[in-house]
Amino acid sequence: MGVVRVPADKYWGAQTQRSLQNFKIGGEKMPMEMLRALAIVKHAAATVNERLGKLDSRRAEAIRVAAREVIEGKLDDNFPLVVWQTGSGTQTNMNVNEVISNRAIEMLGGVVGSKDPVHPNDHVNMSQSSNDTFPTAMSVATAYEVQEGLVPALRLLRDELDKKSREWESIVKIGRTHLMDAVPITLGQEFGGYAQQLRNSLLRAKAAMVHLTELAIGGTAVGTGLNSHPRYAELMAQEISVLTGLPFVSAPNKFESLAAHDAQAALSGMLKTMALSLLKISNDIRMLGSGPRAGLGELNLPENEPGSSIMPGKVNPTQCEAMMMVCAQVVGNDMGVTLGGAAGSHFELNVAKPLIAFNNLQSIKLLSQASVSFAENCVRGIAPNLERIDELMRSSLMLVTALNPHIGYDKAAKIAKKAHKERTTLKEAGVSLGILTAAQFDEWVRPELMTSPEGEGAGHAGLALASSSRL
Amino acid sequence: MGVVRVPADKYWGAQTQRSLQNFKIGGEKMPMEMLRALAIVKHAAATVNERLGKLDSRRAEAIRVAAREVIEGKLDDNFPLVVWQTGSGTQTNMNVNEVISNRAIEMLGGVVGSKDPVHPNDHVNMSQSSNDTFPTAMSVATAYEVQEGLVPALRLLRDELDKKSREWESIVKIGRTHLMDAVPITLGQEFGGYAQQLRNSLLRAKAAMVHLTELAIGGTAVGTGLNSHPRYAELMAQEISVLTGLPFVSAPNKFESLAAHDAQAALSGMLKTMALSLLKISNDIRMLGSGPRAGLGELNLPENEPGSSIMPGKVNPTQCEAMMMVCAQVVGNDMGVTLGGAAGSHFELNVAKPLIAFNNLQSIKLLSQASVSFAENCVRGIAPNLERIDELMRSSLMLVTALNPHIGYDKAAKIAKKAHKERTTLKEAGVSLGILTAAQFDEWVRPELMTSPEGEGAGHAGLALASSSRL
Amino acid sequence: MGVVRVPADKYWGAQTQRSLQNFKIGGEKMPMEMLRALAIVKHAAATVNERLGKLDSRRAEAIRVAAREVIEGKLDDNFPLVVWQTGSGTQTNMNVNEVISNRAIEMLGGVVGSKDPVHPNDHVNMSQSSNDTFPTAMSVATAYEVQEGLVPALRLLRDELDKKSREWESIVKIGRTHLMDAVPITLGQEFGGYAQQLRNSLLRAKAAMVHLTELAIGGTAVGTGLNSHPRYAELMAQEISVLTGLPFVSAPNKFESLAAHDAQAALSGMLKTMALSLLKISNDIRMLGSGPRAGLGELNLPENEPGSSIMPGKVNPTQCEAMMMVCAQVVGNDMGVTLGGAAGSHFELNVAKPLIAFNNLQSIKLLSQASVSFAENCVRGIAPNLERIDELMRSSLMLVTALNPHIGYDKAAKIAKKAHKERTTLKEAGVSLGILTAAQFDEWVRPELMTSPEGEGAGHAGLALASSSRL
Amino acid sequence: MGVVRVPADKYWGAQTQRSLQNFKIGGEKMPMEMLRALAIVKHAAATVNERLGKLDSRRAEAIRVAAREVIEGKLDDNFPLVVWQTGSGTQTNMNVNEVISNRAIEMLGGVVGSKDPVHPNDHVNMSQSSNDTFPTAMSVATAYEVQEGLVPALRLLRDELDKKSREWESIVKIGRTHLMDAVPITLGQEFGGYAQQLRNSLLRAKAAMVHLTELAIGGTAVGTGLNSHPRYAELMAQEISVLTGLPFVSAPNKFESLAAHDAQAALSGMLKTMALSLLKISNDIRMLGSGPRAGLGELNLPENEPGSSIMPGKVNPTQCEAMMMVCAQVVGNDMGVTLGGAAGSHFELNVAKPLIAFNNLQSIKLLSQASVSFAENCVRGIAPNLERIDELMRSSLMLVTALNPHIGYDKAAKIAKKAHKERTTLKEAGVSLGILTAAQFDEWVRPELMTSPEGEGAGHAGLALASSSRL
Repeated sequence: MGVVRVPADKYWGAQTQRSLQNFKIGGEKMPMEMLRALAIVKHAAATVNERLGKLDSRRAEAIRVAAREVIEGKLDDNFPLVVWQTGSGTQTNMNVNEVISNRAIEMLGGVVGSKDPVHPNDHVNMSQSSNDTFPTAMSVATAYEVQEGLVPALRLLRDELDKKSREWESIVKIGRTHLMDAVPITLGQEFGGYAQQLRNSLLRAKAAMVHLTELAIGGTAVGTGLNSHPRYAELMAQEISVLTGLPFVSAPNKFESLAAHDAQAALSGMLKTMALSLLKISNDIRMLGSGPRAGLGELNLPENEPGSSIMPGKVNPTQCEAMMMVCAQVVGNDMGVTLGGAAGSHFELNVAKPLIAFNNLQSIKLLSQASVSFAENCVRGIAPNLERIDELMRSSLMLVTALNPHIGYDKAAKIAKKAHKERTTLKEAGVSLGILTAAQFDEWVRPELMTSPEGEGAGHAGLALASSSRL
Repeated sequence: MGVVRVPADKYWGAQTQRSLQNFKIGGEKMPMEMLRALAIVKHAAATVNERLGKLDSRRAEAIRVAAREVIEGKLDDNFPLVVWQTGSGTQTNMNVNEVISNRAIEMLGGVVGSKDPVHPNDHVNMSQSSNDTFPTAMSVATAYEVQEGLVPALRLLRDELDKKSREWESIVKIGRTHLMDAVPITLGQEFGGYAQQLRNSLLRAKAAMVHLTELAIGGTAVGTGLNSHPRYAELMAQEISVLTGLPFVSAPNKFESLAAHDAQAALSGMLKTMALSLLKISNDIRMLGSGPRAGLGELNLPENEPGSSIMPGKVNPTQCEAMMMVCAQVVGNDMGVTLGGAAGSHFELNVAKPLIAFNNLQSIKLLSQASVSFAENCVRGIAPNLERIDELMRSSLMLVTALNPHIGYDKAAKIAKKAHKERTTLKEAGVSLGILTAAQFDEWVRPELMTSPEGEGAGHAGLALASSSRL
Repeated sequence: MGVVRVPADKYWGAQTQRSLQNFKIGGEKMPMEMLRALAIVKHAAATVNERLGKLDSRRAEAIRVAAREVIEGKLDDNFPLVVWQTGSGTQTNMNVNEVISNRAIEMLGGVVGSKDPVHPNDHVNMSQSSNDTFPTAMSVATAYEVQEGLVPALRLLRDELDKKSREWESIVKIGRTHLMDAVPITLGQEFGGYAQQLRNSLLRAKAAMVHLTELAIGGTAVGTGLNSHPRYAELMAQEISVLTGLPFVSAPNKFESLAAHDAQAALSGMLKTMALSLLKISNDIRMLGSGPRAGLGELNLPENEPGSSIMPGKVNPTQCEAMMMVCAQVVGNDMGVTLGGAAGSHFELNVAKPLIAFNNLQSIKLLSQASVSFAENCVRGIAPNLERIDELMRSSLMLVTALNPHIGYDKAAKIAKKAHKERTTLKEAGVSLGILTAAQFDEWVRPELMTSPEGEGAGHAGLALASSSRL
Repeated sequence: MGVVRVPADKYWGAQTQRSLQNFKIGGEKMPMEMLRALAIVKHAAATVNERLGKLDSRRAEAIRVAAREVIEGKLDDNFPLVVWQTGSGTQTNMNVNEVISNRAIEMLGGVVGSKDPVHPNDHVNMSQSSNDTFPTAMSVATAYEVQEGLVPALRLLRDELDKKSREWESIVKIGRTHLMDAVPITLGQEFGGYAQQLRNSLLRAKAAMVHLTELAIGGTAVGTGLNSHPRYAELMAQEISVLTGLPFVSAPNKFESLAAHDAQAALSGMLKTMALSLLKISNDIRMLGSGPRAGLGELNLPENEPGSSIMPGKVNPTQCEAMMMVCAQVVGNDMGVTLGGAAGSHFELNVAKPLIAFNNLQSIKLLSQASVSFAENCVRGIAPNLERIDELMRSSLMLVTALNPHIGYDKAAKIAKKAHKERTTLKEAGVSLGILTAAQFDEWVRPELMTSPEGEGAGHAGLALASSSRL
């Protein structure tokens, strides 16, 4: 394949350099989360190979020290490759092998680039193939980011929503279905629904961890475990668990782990569902906060920055919009992952691995950081516009629904239609139709009692249950 | 809204008729699974309302009898509405209310259309709103179809794949990564990977049931439970469980159940992941069966029908193609559901309910029936082409990988490249390069030992584990 | 392949029957539009083969008569196959060949099923392969439905929107950006933007016709034209143009036409863009019509049917919701088509043809019929709520923007913020800040002049241009 | 909104700084293409405002000089904002306004940050709103990248494919449909089909330019053109055309241009169609190059780099895989854009602008650079494996199709089935069945004559037409 020239001030070698030259596509670098996860795999492999008597302690320790430098971010500028490379991620696996080997050689007093005494394939990659290290790193990186990034972010947002839900449990407001006036609900109930979506999101995140924590490592080239020790796979899962603090296990079937990425596809589908939840919540909030004078105006959102370069004094629901765009991006990323599964899975290896890792890690990060930003810069500072809420609620013709059990649907409809047509109140319409008396109306139509089943207090049901199912 | 004329020979009423006239869009009818599920809700509500003292026994029993006729399919031609109607499904809920009310009236000797003695809203729809009955029916219909349709179908396919995996555990064949020749694998291992994908699919189907079995019923109009008895929601979940044999519970937060369809979105994402699994398996099988003379030719697929109107004697992998199209449809349906979540969830009600129900029910049915068809008409009849498999395996240059632990990666690469360039065997190349002796080659390169970790027997690892995790 | 029993009362033969038995998947039948288009191809081929001296007139005429019966819908119940069959559509092509052959045999006095004197392959399918007839039928069916179904429907909707735009050109209302109050716009301008979206949609529909009208016919089995006459392809395109009245041409490269379905993918992408336009318009309209008392309430939408089974008198924007679900379905269908292209295009033939045809034809029909329904049942009957529109417009703080050229952005912002904070008018705030006089305010802030560039009359710009670019 | 501290060594101001602080989401920066396009807008606006007598020459020139520095990339580190900000892109518009204003102030001897003598809103943003500048920049940036990046890249790839198509026009090979052996085709025809896909892609790219070149500028805040001169819109389009060399026009309806992004959605759909074309081509090539010994092996792809960290000597179709991942990403980006249209278009403004711009610009860049890489590093170096191609072609049972016109489909099928079952040649089977003589077989079955219609020379049809329709 000819000679290739490598920069003298970098630890990478020929295979990295060839990739750099052959794939001048886009600027999206392989995510650092993947490089750190690969270094964790190399660290663990050195330990397990040493323990199994396949690697001497001097080399094993040098590999571990170099790997730790990668994990700690000390060698970040040695990983220049883009996502759009070989579909197995082999070039990035070799990038890590080369950097760790050369750094280890340097520490052991050898000549960088000589492959001696630490060979990138024979020692750093010992008992491994890109085919199992790369999907293992995908599992490690995504599981870690879900656990350490996404879950805390969702909890923060859930807590802010829960807090509002409790604070606002007595604020009776108009409910809206089909965007049209409906029967009353409390503002606390409305936000309690949002909090429940977050609670369910947390449950879904946990469920996605099940298959994410099954590691491909030990499958080597095609899943058979060729050139590895029979105990290697299990020991690797244990060692990686120790290094990361997450409960990884050896995948029950390595062929499945290499050939397809169903666990990543399931993760992606879960992230998309989460995006739909967050989209709904942020959409509702920006609509409830619309105005200030010609919108719904029930909520005042924090005024974080000027909103217009031409309209002075305009303030916009920018956090909601950023969240909306993040959610759209996550849906798009899911489709990219889906195509990566559909067009990349042939025989013993899925070859859309870098794409899948890139998209899922981006989605996790975006959902995490957008949730934190939304919680802190929006939800936390929302204040209800009590006057407006009360005015709108009292004007609603749908309060008529409370009359159903007393006068039946058809007569109630007559009252509502008359009031609508003649722009009067329900009470006026009902009395004028001779269907009820004003006193009956006042007794039967009590908005604060309409937010729960018959005879219960105002709108506590959802909340009581909500607070009992905390994660 | 003016007068509307209704057919005399049908049980539906004015609201159904208006929908028929106002929504002349497409020909996709509301799925019968939804209508039966709604009838189950009506049946249960009659019972619970009776038990709570809100409905007299005569009406309750008449409603139950009529509802049972709907459930049993006796009134199928009374449900003419299409999917593309109001986004709440109110018109279909009213269609069911009208049909049950009129059929009950008829049985009780009343005048059809008179709403007396069984009123569609006041009695059949008592303690209900479309806003809670329709999502409840969505939960009931999809949970039922997953449990009774999809799960058995996946099990059937898993069993066929497992059977092949066991039968073929000793057939050593070439592995392929990047579509290129790789190290050996057994045909049993390859199919064992597919079986594992099915096993995981079954686990994912079970996990999706968690939120599907949480029922919205009891939320009535906006989730508050207005006009319902405090014990109604719990009793309804119990009664529906009795009627269906599935473990439904009352949703912990009714606001979430009405306003968003995250459980359906999660189901849809799960179905999409399943489609990716089935796509991978069917793709592999059609490629392994390609030929008969100019393809890979490792598998002989059943010859079910002539394949060409112009090329005599041609037989094609048609079951794989039907599966591929089904999987593509399921991915598309998932996107439809996603948009239904994104564009349909405002305030207290998601109004893309008919779309979401339609797409998810279609996906479940297609995946179920395609899996059965694929299992019975394809997988079951596949036979390995042993001669071809052996010939291809023995020709592979990647057997050189077995030399890595003995001579290192770099020397092994030299041998492979020489053999490739000069079109010789690896043994010839290795000996001619002076790297090893013919005897060493024969000792080190034994394909049947390359399908498992060092020192283990041939390729049993995945299978042993696979068979232990049966659902 | 064994014996197969065929119903005596149907014209189909063994190949149709085998497909029926082997593909018990879903209930989605091959669209009748495809069957009619295939019959058009058979009709044309009989004529062209006769003209080229390859088929005698007796057989040719019998084939044409039978084909015409299919085209006219007289034999509809002879096409029982589902979409989920072989990916080439060969089984449906053979279904058509068998039905036409048997009907022709019957008319010529032969024995149905004998293949004599009209053989399904040798005569009805003469000079053809499923590989070119099926994609030709896809082109014919989709081009026809776009031209005869979609384009008139879009024109109808455009005209209704244009009409409103002209009627309402003097109604000044508040503009909204980010859902927040912005500077004024006329209601005519708002609807003029919608009309422009329809105009652009029509242009896009026309552009999609370019590649749709390129026919694959003449490519036969793999695109080479094997077993066809050199002039056959051109003559077929001419003959099909005569039969359909559409300007079909012979595709410049038949290999492309068979192997991929880029023209259908482009059509699908176009339909998706159109769906986004319609979604935006229908979303805006339902939001502008929200209320009646606690929403924006600027528009009164037609009250077509009762909206709730529990809330008496409720009326909902159901046409907008049906349109929204249709648009979501079209986006999903586009994804199905995309997967059909991605997972179905290998070597000389795309084998997701039935899926692609099914989805695109469904999308065309849904968009066409939903547009008509939306135009007739919604747009046509919308009335502006003039009082409400004026009240909201006059309350807007964003009228302050008119002051920018006079006092600069920063001072204008001060006025707006003060008015917002103190809930006063802009004029009061401006005067109290000493920035301007009341007289200056009245001179500078004139909403009716804010709907066009400086010095122009009210909001005519878009309309003038709009009406000039009619299709 | 309180005090905000801005770095002293940067030109940005308070609004940029607030965005930095409020949107700590992801690391995806606003694409530089957008910032340069915005600077082009500022440059043009200074000129047009000067010409219309609204801006003095000193300020106008200072703004132009500063804008030119942005366009030339001299101030790149002054644009720190991410994509996930306000959905109107106002913060980035203000970032550009602030940087240009401060740099202009500096050049004019003023105090950076003083807004004097060049105010970011009143002067740099004069006659503009983010609402029209940002979509204008989207049009300018995407149109430019399509024209200058994508079109040349597609032409390069088309030319490489065309070259192969011509070089290989006499290489007769087996065709494949359904992955199964079919009738012959030339390798030139196969690559001619790919070249045609690229030709069509170029046509589609041109078609997308139509609406991309319609500029929103002049619409200002909501499309009315408030605070702009009546001639401003037209003059801006002219001036931007001069600056970019592209034929921009003023959009016929500014309300449409701001409120929706149908032109960007159509572009995105076009890019997706293009991705499907490239996916099909690269998939075919990697499958035709599969092997080297156990695959199809008809093509030898360039050996660019070692393919495995464990399997020595392995070489993989890495360029095809990178292309596949790029295509998947483009499909995902299209879905992101679709959601941005669906969830972001409300009333007078679509607020998913940064997302849409980001995704479309990424897709254009990825497709452009991947096409170049694929053309140069893969297609250019492909060599046919003539021996293998001939061997596979001659073995094919589908050569029997040439007998159809002589002996009919049914007898031909008998021959093929017998040969398949008994593993003999077609000739042997035909003779042994007594259907034809060996001499007849040799006369009728001539693969080189099967690649075109009857009586024509080998496979030229597609190529002749192909070369005539060059762009």
